[in-house]
Amino acid sequence: MSRPLKGFREFPPEVMAARRRVVDVLTSVPARFGYREIDVPSVEPLEIFRLKSGDEVVDQTFSFRDKGGREVTLIPETTPSVARAVASASRSSPLPLRWYSFTRLWRYEDPQAGRTREFFQLNVDAFGTGDVKADAEILAVAAGILRALGLEGDVRIHISDRRLLDGVLAPAGVGDVPAVCRVLDKMDKAGWDPVREMLISMGLDDELCETLRTLTGFVGDLRDRISDVESVIGESDATRRLRILGEMLEWYSVEGLCRLDPGVVRGLDYYTSLVFEGHDTRREMRALFGGGRYDSLVSLLGGPDIPAVGFAMGDVVLERLMRRAGTWPGERVGTDCVVAVADGSAYALAVRFASRLREMGLVSELDIMSRSLAKQMRYADRMNARWTVILGRTSVEEGRATLRDMRSGEQVDLPLDEIYARLGTGAAQGQ
Amino acid sequence: MSRPLKGFREFPPEVMAARRRVVDVLTSVPARFGYREIDVPSVEPLEIFRLKSGDEVVDQTFSFRDKGGREVTLIPETTPSVARAVASASRSSPLPLRWYSFTRLWRYEDPQAGRTREFFQLNVDAFGTGDVKADAEILAVAAGILRALGLEGDVRIHISDRRLLDGVLAPAGVGDVPAVCRVLDKMDKAGWDPVREMLISMGLDDELCETLRTLTGFVGDLRDRISDVESVIGESDATRRLRILGEMLEWYSVEGLCRLDPGVVRGLDYYTSLVFEGHDTRREMRALFGGGRYDSLVSLLGGPDIPAVGFAMGDVVLERLMRRAGTWPGERVGTDCVVAVADGSAYALAVRFASRLREMGLVSELDIMSRSLAKQMRYADRMNARWTVILGRTSVEEGRATLRDMRSGEQVDLPLDEIYARLGTGAAQGQ
Repeated sequence: MSRPLKGFREFPPEVMAARRRVVDVLTSVPARFGYREIDVPSVEPLEIFRLKSGDEVVDQTFSFRDKGGREVTLIPETTPSVARAVASASRSSPLPLRWYSFTRLWRYEDPQAGRTREFFQLNVDAFGTGDVKADAEILAVAAGILRALGLEGDVRIHISDRRLLDGVLAPAGVGDVPAVCRVLDKMDKAGWDPVREMLISMGLDDELCETLRTLTGFVGDLRDRISDVESVIGESDATRRLRILGEMLEWYSVEGLCRLDPGVVRGLDYYTSLVFEGHDTRREMRALFGGGRYDSLVSLLGGPDIPAVGFAMGDVVLERLMRRAGTWPGERVGTDCVVAVADGSAYALAVRFASRLREMGLVSELDIMSRSLAKQMRYADRMNARWTVILGRTSVEEGRATLRDMRSGEQVDLPLDEIYARLGTGAAQGQ
Repeated sequence: MSRPLKGFREFPPEVMAARRRVVDVLTSVPARFGYREIDVPSVEPLEIFRLKSGDEVVDQTFSFRDKGGREVTLIPETTPSVARAVASASRSSPLPLRWYSFTRLWRYEDPQAGRTREFFQLNVDAFGTGDVKADAEILAVAAGILRALGLEGDVRIHISDRRLLDGVLAPAGVGDVPAVCRVLDKMDKAGWDPVREMLISMGLDDELCETLRTLTGFVGDLRDRISDVESVIGESDATRRLRILGEMLEWYSVEGLCRLDPGVVRGLDYYTSLVFEGHDTRREMRALFGGGRYDSLVSLLGGPDIPAVGFAMGDVVLERLMRRAGTWPGERVGTDCVVAVADGSAYALAVRFASRLREMGLVSELDIMSRSLAKQMRYADRMNARWTVILGRTSVEEGRATLRDMRSGEQVDLPLDEIYARLGTGAAQGQ
């Protein structure tokens, strides 16, 4: 029998149960901040990704000619599609647009730890406001997700403003600031010496290299470290925004998850001010998420001139990190109640009984294999049933059945109405 | 700016809000019967679809060679991937496997009413049991979905057993039963005369045509009409199973949504006994869903010899039908509470206040554009906020704020704790 393609995953029920719990957190946190779910096509014209990401990303797409001869691709990211949707929504909906999506994406890269060819990504973005309050809210959403996933002790959000480094490099005549940013981006993995050598080879002098090193060393509490940064490069709109941001993160009670890190620049060139990345505290993995403010991107993609701030978080690094932290949910199935029959004559009653439990919101399973009671009980046990109700010939005559608590093993004979009442309470108690 | 490709859809928040409510029903009904969510890759080797569906389906795929030279396709259906997953799960999990998925699929066909190139499909299947109890349960799930979507008056489930027609055709020496079935399948659209002509041209004699016509005319209540069928073709395993099925559907209280319809054969050849289709009562649209028992398919696809019964329902016809029936949910966004500030000095308090509402499970939105109170109120109104809380300078000093009920327009000044309590109750009342 065939296997899934390299870099593609299938999710059987046990695994899916765990994933569903995680996805529910990923989507419910932004939803409570008023972010609204959207969805975009999975196949798009290839050209819309060229505009933003250039040929490197395009080389890594699952692109092909469709049967109509169009050059199309499985989407490697949602931003261009979302920007298009923003263009039309911003004409009719009140701003800000608070949007999130949780979608399937594809990149033709070599699968490795933290990277698959098909993956899922949460995107959370606020469009239509350049206010630092929006920056704070987006960071609060990211921090809220970390907290809700039990990762508060395992991940820190490293925050900067692209203009901190721009302000140092531009006066020194360094034109290709993004290139320097890409080199600095390697510091975590390569260390300072190779990075310094690369910078020198790009025409930076020793003093500038040292300034960059000093600046990127100011890692820590936002409100403290901004003063250090200003002592080197002076006050600017970037430092003022970061100072206010630091204060607002305290209002959101998430300052403990955040730190200033002027070395964060993000590999991509389109961020205009705020940039941030979620990193595991041991720095063993890729970034868990990344984002920032991209005020020019929507118009670059052909949309209106609309500011934006947001982040994207993939499922693959997240799962690795949660497994390491011990917070990945248990991969097991469960069921509220197995309704078993000791005698075939009770099956009609069992169907009605199970239907009523379902109307109460309970998961309720019947035998559909005409098996012996012993085998039905074994099924209940293996499916981790919370309760089993056993109906027999006397159930039909007397309206009673046996209720078995599968945790305690306790078993009682009760009128059916009493069983409904007990199971209803059990459901309310959060089985 | 680019547009979505032909046959692809994007879903802005208002539309997505409606869709999410529908999808929640589609997945929660099978979940309560103990069906468990699974997920499969969106790209698969093309060959796994050839085995089951033949070249016609393969011609309609989004297939291409990936950068590694593999002949792959966006999946046009989930069955082959699910069969593969069943093969491995059936070795370790107790039977039956009750599985559902709600996934994105693609077919390269000309877009038209009820058909897009990218669509979503619910699949619900029970593997590992050939028992008629499983047939009844699957139909009860389909009927339960119709009921929960408010379509009880608009859709009927037309049920048959492939062997009813097989039993007539095989003794008459008609070898290609599926070909006759495909012709009979056109009766709804084309009427009897053209169908009869086609049958004659296939070598059927007049008497056989009349028998087929009589048989396919026995449409109605399962338990009544099975006797009519038996009066023509005698008793068989097929009629016995349908009779039991009719009885069981009454136990599930869904017999009113179901009818016997011996003309239902499904276009696909792999169904082995039970077949069914959901049709709008006016017969204006394509089938809303289709399914049946396919006991040989998993082994045909290279898996173990495991019986299966299930159905698939697409989102496109469903949406059309619900719109026609007036049960498609309102396409509007909403929010529980907008927390507005009359004065910038109250923003820190507003952040904390909104955070606490979110902890209570409420959707709570803040101004992130530093707008005037009037504009914040206008935003709240346009987002259909249930409540607005207005914080000002005195809120910080006195711990009080203004609570505005956006439905009644009533506005009261209250201590913050009192507001938490009121909104908490409002949430419980199902805003």
